Amino acid sequence: MRLALQDVATLVEGRLAGDGRIWITGASILRDASPGDVTLVDRPKLLSALNGCSASAVILPEGMEVEGVASVAVSDVRAAFAKVVEVFRPAYREQARGVSASAYVSATARLGDDVVIHPGVTVGDFVEIGSGCVIHAGAHLMAQCRVGRDTQIFPNVVLYENTVIGDRVRIHANAVIGAYGFGYETVNGRHESTAQLGYVEVASDVEIGAGTTIDRGTYGPTRVGEGTKIDNLVQVGHNCRIGRHNLICSQVGIAGSCTTGDFVVMGGQVGLRDHVDIGSQAMLGAKAGVMSDIPAQTKYVGIPATPEREQMVKQAAWSKLPEMRKELRSLRKRVEQLSAQLEQTRRPEAA
Amino acid sequence: MRLALQDVATLVEGRLAGDGRIWITGASILRDASPGDVTLVDRPKLLSALNGCSASAVILPEGMEVEGVASVAVSDVRAAFAKVVEVFRPAYREQARGVSASAYVSATARLGDDVVIHPGVTVGDFVEIGSGCVIHAGAHLMAQCRVGRDTQIFPNVVLYENTVIGDRVRIHANAVIGAYGFGYETVNGRHESTAQLGYVEVASDVEIGAGTTIDRGTYGPTRVGEGTKIDNLVQVGHNCRIGRHNLICSQVGIAGSCTTGDFVVMGGQVGLRDHVDIGSQAMLGAKAGVMSDIPAQTKYVGIPATPEREQMVKQAAWSKLPEMRKELRSLRKRVEQLSAQLEQTRRPEAA
Amino acid sequence: MRLALQDVATLVEGRLAGDGRIWITGASILRDASPGDVTLVDRPKLLSALNGCSASAVILPEGMEVEGVASVAVSDVRAAFAKVVEVFRPAYREQARGVSASAYVSATARLGDDVVIHPGVTVGDFVEIGSGCVIHAGAHLMAQCRVGRDTQIFPNVVLYENTVIGDRVRIHANAVIGAYGFGYETVNGRHESTAQLGYVEVASDVEIGAGTTIDRGTYGPTRVGEGTKIDNLVQVGHNCRIGRHNLICSQVGIAGSCTTGDFVVMGGQVGLRDHVDIGSQAMLGAKAGVMSDIPAQTKYVGIPATPEREQMVKQAAWSKLPEMRKELRSLRKRVEQLSAQLEQTRRPEAA
Repeated sequence: MRLALQDVATLVEGRLAGDGRIWITGASILRDASPGDVTLVDRPKLLSALNGCSASAVILPEGMEVEGVASVAVSDVRAAFAKVVEVFRPAYREQARGVSASAYVSATARLGDDVVIHPGVTVGDFVEIGSGCVIHAGAHLMAQCRVGRDTQIFPNVVLYENTVIGDRVRIHANAVIGAYGFGYETVNGRHESTAQLGYVEVASDVEIGAGTTIDRGTYGPTRVGEGTKIDNLVQVGHNCRIGRHNLICSQVGIAGSCTTGDFVVMGGQVGLRDHVDIGSQAMLGAKAGVMSDIPAQTKYVGIPATPEREQMVKQAAWSKLPEMRKELRSLRKRVEQLSAQLEQTRRPEAA
Repeated sequence: MRLALQDVATLVEGRLAGDGRIWITGASILRDASPGDVTLVDRPKLLSALNGCSASAVILPEGMEVEGVASVAVSDVRAAFAKVVEVFRPAYREQARGVSASAYVSATARLGDDVVIHPGVTVGDFVEIGSGCVIHAGAHLMAQCRVGRDTQIFPNVVLYENTVIGDRVRIHANAVIGAYGFGYETVNGRHESTAQLGYVEVASDVEIGAGTTIDRGTYGPTRVGEGTKIDNLVQVGHNCRIGRHNLICSQVGIAGSCTTGDFVVMGGQVGLRDHVDIGSQAMLGAKAGVMSDIPAQTKYVGIPATPEREQMVKQAAWSKLPEMRKELRSLRKRVEQLSAQLEQTRRPEAA
Repeated sequence: MRLALQDVATLVEGRLAGDGRIWITGASILRDASPGDVTLVDRPKLLSALNGCSASAVILPEGMEVEGVASVAVSDVRAAFAKVVEVFRPAYREQARGVSASAYVSATARLGDDVVIHPGVTVGDFVEIGSGCVIHAGAHLMAQCRVGRDTQIFPNVVLYENTVIGDRVRIHANAVIGAYGFGYETVNGRHESTAQLGYVEVASDVEIGAGTTIDRGTYGPTRVGEGTKIDNLVQVGHNCRIGRHNLICSQVGIAGSCTTGDFVVMGGQVGLRDHVDIGSQAMLGAKAGVMSDIPAQTKYVGIPATPEREQMVKQAAWSKLPEMRKELRSLRKRVEQLSAQLEQTRRPEAA
């Protein structure tokens, strides 16, 4: 597969600079590009990296100039580059249609139009699946789940009973929605599970990462709000209310009964203790340990979580700690000297 | 579905205060309750939250008083509330019985009475499953596993060869028991896996969370003691001995060859290095990083893990760090002034 | 099952010391050994533990001496002990051959010789699997995956489209390779997913732990280099380049576009922010939080990650913090005293 660069320019409706007759044989990012490849530069600070790169051509934003390599200028670099990648490595188009003969679908389940159900799926009693959904191999939807339209459930996802999923949701492989909450009471020296009568409700346009777990509420729902994106291996505890359009990075752990506002961002490996409320547009830095409520529109970092500015001042002091210790010692010595000298001065007869 | 409040009171054998003729149409926790709902208050400090809540009635403990809303007083609030929830949203009762035609069960496996095996399950050679067990869809029990009575194994759980599971155990979806330990020796610049001849032994009444992984021992068992509860996405390394009635919260990581006593509690995201021993009834605060043995009946927090009291004193000092730094600077200046003044005093002729 | 100790010695080609006629009925590590067991001691510092151990005999390295218990001296203790364990508890030998009738294999997939495919597996369109591979129950290989020779894929592993896996790779249960990267752009107040046109490429002799997730690149590959070993529940973000022979412990989180050199070691729960480069042979201590590039052949620990020596000096100062605070207060007092005395000395007439 090869394309003349001028054909690439035509494909992405871009403005060509340099020799349009050179052959393009692939599309790779800067770090990986080799001769024959077209690459992309989407912001000025990456321009310098083009020197060490053996790409034959580059797609860049209109108005950005580059020397020594052919270029195609476009208004949306990422969209244009994606188009070229798809020419060289076409995405696989799902052929499957309908319900696989090796899936198990309860007679009481109701499926919308154009639902695709892959082999090894189980769909429990009274489950409802909206039109246009794709349920990939080995996913299990237990009794009474309700799934909206055009939702994709990847292989081996498990939805426990009564889970409610919105429209256009994506749940990646091996995520588990609706397992029992981690709540116990100690009775006669043994841990007895609290009630597990609740369920999980995931609103529309949510994405849930691979291996992520979201526990059911005690008596009612654990909720994830519209448009929220959750990365891989995240834990969301029972009774939580996650707001709308949150971004929750990988390996975050949210203990039971927390709430978040809208547009909250949590970096990787953040931990929240139970029953804390995070205000809208708050940002929690990676690995932050949150022990109490966080106000809206603030940025907290560290363990325990601290306003970022305050933490920076502390970190600066912390990095001076060994120096401070030395200073303290020398100061103590100096004070003792002064003290002795003063003593001498006051009692000159003793000298 | 609706019930008069007096019928709710009768159902839970509680004492009614207020108008028993009002209609109850649902049961929700304080945060979610709307008109028509009965809610619950199980401790005095939640009473104030009732004001902002539009519930029509509340279930509360005997002896607790409330004004402005109808109430039902009972001795066990949570049990009573659970009863009401189950009336309004009956739990789904498993209909499945016996072995699904689309499960694979080895001819050499032995199943007890009343075992339920869902579609897509595989039961390997010489596996034994005790009576009353439920093995949910897509779970895989590899060769020679032994499972006790009345144990529930949720969808897509994987038990590697020779895993031993006790009675009344619950293993949640996508947990993996018995994968290879992370032990390597470097031989000629390559990492060679150590022996993987062991297995995992889980005692009775244990609960294991979704996505949790427990690795097999090198030559013998990795053990989890009776009654211990493990949350989601926890890692237990090879050769560990987890004691009885531990509570291990989500995303805890326990490296190889650790031991814990009984009634140990670990908060979320705690990490233990390999070969540490945790004494009985020790508590490890969320995110603690444990580098050495922890004595029984103590509470440790922080990275590295430190006795809680000590850590609090350090944290207090830490929050004063920037101030200390300023103080140190001003003190240095003051000492220099003093020093100059003293010099002047001692050598007045130089003035 | 029992063996005379002299037969154990013969089996492992070791030198017997003590009574060779005693019966050996099992093999256990020091902590677990009971009468009748043979145990192992592979380094001098474990010798003392033999006193509290009721093992009947011990396998130890040539040249090491022990009193009061029969012994067998060998050149490779672990290999010899493994041999004995296998006599007492023979490893289960896989009986399965060929493709299970309850697997789904696309007509366009190509399988090498001696491939074993267990029940419930799905093999998508145009997938290629090399000879000698074992694909365990419930694993799903989506369209166009390519797997090398003699690779083992454990139950419920999911490979998304276009995943490339090398030879002699082991992927443990419930790992997910090739799910979508966590990349979003905010368009009109909503998070829109970036391109998901890439894939994952795993080189030969890699091992991937249970529940681990490795995301696909944006336009091209996310790569894991030859011989690298990854533990359970690790997250590797989109576009990462993991080098060769790395050891990555459990629950590590690596954000997008990171690179590592060769022989990098990361302790448990380490976190890397996006776009950082880790030099060859660098070591990152457990729970380290890496915010910027790490030079080759260094050891970093802490949050934020700091050279180990520097961190130790800081930790030492940190543990003296409360003391420093006290010291500072007493010094301040002392300086005030001196100041007053000096004043008095300089203005004796005021006294």
